[in-house]
Amino acid sequence: MRNRVIIENVKPEIDNGRFFIKRIPGERVDVSADIFSDGHDVLRAALLFKHENDKNWSEVPMVEGLNDVWTAAFTVEKEGFYEYKVEGWVDHLNTWYKGFLKKQEDGQDMAVELKIGADLLRKAAVSKTDKASKLAKTLEGKYEAAVEAVMAEEFAATVAEFPLRQFQTVYDNHLRVRVGRSKELFSAWYEFFPRSTALLPGKHGTFKDAARLLPRIQELGFDVLYLPPIHPVGKLNRKGKNNAVTAESNDPGSPWAIGSEEGGHKAVAPELGTLEDYKKLIREAEKMGIEIAFDLAFQCAPDHPYIKEHPEWFLWRPDGTIMYAENPPKKYQDIVPINFESDDWENLWNELKSVVLFWVEQGVKIFRVDNPHTKPFRFWDWLIGEVQRDHPDVLFLSESFTRPKVMAELAKGGFTQSYSYFTWRTTKKEVEEYMTELTQTELREYFRPNFWPNTPDILPYELMGANVNAFVKRLLMASTLSSNYGLYGPAYEFLENSGHTGGKEEYHNSEKYEIRHYDWTERNRLTDIMTKINNIRRENPALQTTWNIQFTRTDSDHLMSYVKTTDDLSNIIWCVVNFDTQYAQSGFVEVPKALLKITGRVNLKVTDLLSGESYHWFNDWNYVEINPYKWPAHIFKVEL
Amino acid sequence: MRNRVIIENVKPEIDNGRFFIKRIPGERVDVSADIFSDGHDVLRAALLFKHENDKNWSEVPMVEGLNDVWTAAFTVEKEGFYEYKVEGWVDHLNTWYKGFLKKQEDGQDMAVELKIGADLLRKAAVSKTDKASKLAKTLEGKYEAAVEAVMAEEFAATVAEFPLRQFQTVYDNHLRVRVGRSKELFSAWYEFFPRSTALLPGKHGTFKDAARLLPRIQELGFDVLYLPPIHPVGKLNRKGKNNAVTAESNDPGSPWAIGSEEGGHKAVAPELGTLEDYKKLIREAEKMGIEIAFDLAFQCAPDHPYIKEHPEWFLWRPDGTIMYAENPPKKYQDIVPINFESDDWENLWNELKSVVLFWVEQGVKIFRVDNPHTKPFRFWDWLIGEVQRDHPDVLFLSESFTRPKVMAELAKGGFTQSYSYFTWRTTKKEVEEYMTELTQTELREYFRPNFWPNTPDILPYELMGANVNAFVKRLLMASTLSSNYGLYGPAYEFLENSGHTGGKEEYHNSEKYEIRHYDWTERNRLTDIMTKINNIRRENPALQTTWNIQFTRTDSDHLMSYVKTTDDLSNIIWCVVNFDTQYAQSGFVEVPKALLKITGRVNLKVTDLLSGESYHWFNDWNYVEINPYKWPAHIFKVEL
Repeated sequence: MRNRVIIENVKPEIDNGRFFIKRIPGERVDVSADIFSDGHDVLRAALLFKHENDKNWSEVPMVEGLNDVWTAAFTVEKEGFYEYKVEGWVDHLNTWYKGFLKKQEDGQDMAVELKIGADLLRKAAVSKTDKASKLAKTLEGKYEAAVEAVMAEEFAATVAEFPLRQFQTVYDNHLRVRVGRSKELFSAWYEFFPRSTALLPGKHGTFKDAARLLPRIQELGFDVLYLPPIHPVGKLNRKGKNNAVTAESNDPGSPWAIGSEEGGHKAVAPELGTLEDYKKLIREAEKMGIEIAFDLAFQCAPDHPYIKEHPEWFLWRPDGTIMYAENPPKKYQDIVPINFESDDWENLWNELKSVVLFWVEQGVKIFRVDNPHTKPFRFWDWLIGEVQRDHPDVLFLSESFTRPKVMAELAKGGFTQSYSYFTWRTTKKEVEEYMTELTQTELREYFRPNFWPNTPDILPYELMGANVNAFVKRLLMASTLSSNYGLYGPAYEFLENSGHTGGKEEYHNSEKYEIRHYDWTERNRLTDIMTKINNIRRENPALQTTWNIQFTRTDSDHLMSYVKTTDDLSNIIWCVVNFDTQYAQSGFVEVPKALLKITGRVNLKVTDLLSGESYHWFNDWNYVEINPYKWPAHIFKVEL
Repeated sequence: MRNRVIIENVKPEIDNGRFFIKRIPGERVDVSADIFSDGHDVLRAALLFKHENDKNWSEVPMVEGLNDVWTAAFTVEKEGFYEYKVEGWVDHLNTWYKGFLKKQEDGQDMAVELKIGADLLRKAAVSKTDKASKLAKTLEGKYEAAVEAVMAEEFAATVAEFPLRQFQTVYDNHLRVRVGRSKELFSAWYEFFPRSTALLPGKHGTFKDAARLLPRIQELGFDVLYLPPIHPVGKLNRKGKNNAVTAESNDPGSPWAIGSEEGGHKAVAPELGTLEDYKKLIREAEKMGIEIAFDLAFQCAPDHPYIKEHPEWFLWRPDGTIMYAENPPKKYQDIVPINFESDDWENLWNELKSVVLFWVEQGVKIFRVDNPHTKPFRFWDWLIGEVQRDHPDVLFLSESFTRPKVMAELAKGGFTQSYSYFTWRTTKKEVEEYMTELTQTELREYFRPNFWPNTPDILPYELMGANVNAFVKRLLMASTLSSNYGLYGPAYEFLENSGHTGGKEEYHNSEKYEIRHYDWTERNRLTDIMTKINNIRRENPALQTTWNIQFTRTDSDHLMSYVKTTDDLSNIIWCVVNFDTQYAQSGFVEVPKALLKITGRVNLKVTDLLSGESYHWFNDWNYVEINPYKWPAHIFKVEL
């Protein structure tokens, strides 16, 4: 009860320490806390942290700022979990020292003060021969020499080195950081349906066909290849083209209607090949620096084996039929949801976990999770925790496009990356506000966005009937705003811009319900830019994180300007985007002098990594002109 | 683990439930929470609350608003502690019902749906004969009648009445409300030094002299009379006039230098009279509706008996002298601080508690606590909790003028009221921002401000050399902005405006160090206004709370406008203040139509309770003109 220091409002702390924050090696954890005490004594505070495998805590002194807010930071180096905590105490040695300086200046007699100081130094000393102990002796010696010792500059260092630590307040609320591998924060995804990769039109593509495209994906510069579900597609109530209720005999159905008598969540669709083919695809991709992302969709077609084997995991109607998915009055008869309120929930959870572990054993390290927000949050927390405990390199992308708090909760619970609202943030103001929300609020601690301009489910209105400049613009924005981004590749590359005939924000003739044929040998302006931007991202560390964005001023509503730098300013990328995809726009952009630590006159060389052109800027505001038919954006590399 | 509902971000909740919030009987507790679930089922949530003496919880349904925020409120009726918590669950009966309506509208066959509904109703039923059970039977009867029953309007009420409650999530984080007596929120304080109340100049006033002034205080309309410490004043190192280091033989010293051989914190200064005189003063005041506030100053003069009796409660220097209070290089040799880090802290705490209980036994119910921020926070939490457990009607005012988080922490810990920054908030923008901070942030849950335009320690620059209009303005603002306010009375009433000669924000010839003589029979414009404003406050419930303030627009920088109403609009007070104390100012003020629930044309009668003048207003914006030499403000009573 003699602790006098209050420590409150510690950040980051997610829901009172219930959830961990996320980092990759080399990232910093900035910690702040309100720290204060009664009275006017000098306080000290320290941030302590340790990796789960470390025995001892490391310690950084915290620094007092305005309004009783103290800050400190540490950088995580190793993968795994770190813990951190904050300690604060009243330092009487320091209080005495500060008072001594003022009294001495005031010309007071310091004899008794010297004795007090000697006592405090002895209390602070660790051994009888250390600096503090020696100084204690000096303070008890000759008056003048003693006063001189205290007034000497080195004395402050000794006071700092020997914090008189007693009646400490410890804020230890199970604050944890999960440090994962770099790909968690920096990845470029390409999605295609393996069944649409056959050489001949009308043929069902296979894993082998998909493998043939790996060099192309590699050349484009993507490092994750995400395939929709690869399981046997349900035959019962299979959907036809354009989501027709009845399928024609040759319709392949939606790959998200999982399971038939050919197998369920641990099987592969025979049309795609064998499990061995899939594993081979993973291995071949790996050699090219590409990881295969697996689609984890915990739902069943009506002929999924689970339904007979575990009828207790589903809901049944009084007439003996199974409950399909529905959004009244609409019915989705090719999909049966799992009932997580089942009395047999423990077996259910364990079975689903075994599904993930099965695919991990086959070599999968990235799971794109389908609609996680239709399964209980606490199930995901548990599942991801269980899997990552033994396989910390396994990543989970939350495919949840729903309400903000629901998406945030999934991320809190452990999802490594999350789909985002970028798809619908199309104006300058919207983009700036959304980036600010993602990077300047508590979200940044746990919600890692993955920016997708399109998905097989979503052709945004922004891209319907749009010209290639619009596709280029959205690609450049996604890939430079966010370090994680992805494309539903062929539709994007080949500029599919025909919307759903019913007016929905979907593709005409959605590939979800049919096999498509693409000319994968085609290249166009867009594929060239993809290649270029992925190279730029790889070569510029400033683009390998999402958190460092700073928007800067322009004098045009058409132009958005943002700068990303590494902490040490060794890499500076400055993007200027023209939102007008039809006309050239020009205006002035302001040099962020504070961010770039420019104190005198501006003298910058900026080189557009897209066009290769260089400019020398000597003013605070500089002229830019962007013609979308050439490049819809500047991506300047800045040399100070 | 089958709970699917997430409940987060519950408000109010102070520091994770560590501290209680504060109310008086009749006040509302507005609770909000983020509540959501996976999937698309219909959720329900309830706010539960109970008084500590109640056995059962009362329950209010929560209402869903935007962005997954749910709200509900309850009104506290009785003094003591209430607890509250939030529960949420998925309601399958309601989900089914909402789906039924849509499917029926869609023309689907409802036979199986009716059976499902009957099952759910049976699950929700409490008895076999209640409405739910009866409806279950109807649903199993003839198809048309069954469908009609579900489509009937009453069915929704049944669904609402029988929430199907399973797998509930309970948010129960020890959320508490302390409900105190009304005076905690509504009080008018008058402070004087009893030693300055003698009839004859130069004589030391007594409790009996003070008692003689009670009718005057009553007439002015104050209901708390606060006296600085009444203990024997230390003689050792006693301060002279104007804080002189050496006192003359007839200097009375500062009453905050407590204790001498005549006694300590449980004694009264013999010059003031006897303990019996003090108790009589309390009783006489009580009869007139005035409570005597006691000054609790836990510090000692160097000749306080504690110092000999408990040397271990103080800090000693190596030369055997006691450590005085200091703010290096300044020394306060008439004051010795208590060392709360003493090894004997438990006995110390108990002794200090016994001091409070001693005065409670004498009849004191209000303690104004001197500089609580120089004693440990956790000591106050404990002390106030201990005292209020047995004496819930005892109030503590925190005299802390220091950094915001320190002041807030004292209030969190249990102080009933707190001195505030009002004293230095002098411009329109400052006042509006400060009121917004006090009433629209979490502070409102636990920090009850008490507005003082002056104190014996503070003559603000705003009032130095100021004219009577400035005194009237600050009085009117303090007493209408905040329901708790106070004055260092005689200096205010008698317009003392001479500042400290050293330029400090203090009084010239501070009464802290000398006996003053006032002509207590004097009345002036200011005393008339005090009387008036205290009457207005008593007659208008809208002025009896601080939380209901709403600032409204004016077209003049000189005019500030704010409206306070009771919840039911039965009492509406509209203040317009002229910040200019020299010149009349005029302008237009806007009618807050939304607040006053005016939908059509404006038609208001406003009566200035100060001047008695009435106006009829028919426009959204209305003209006012305020001459500070008449009244520096309008205090309109509004009739709708």
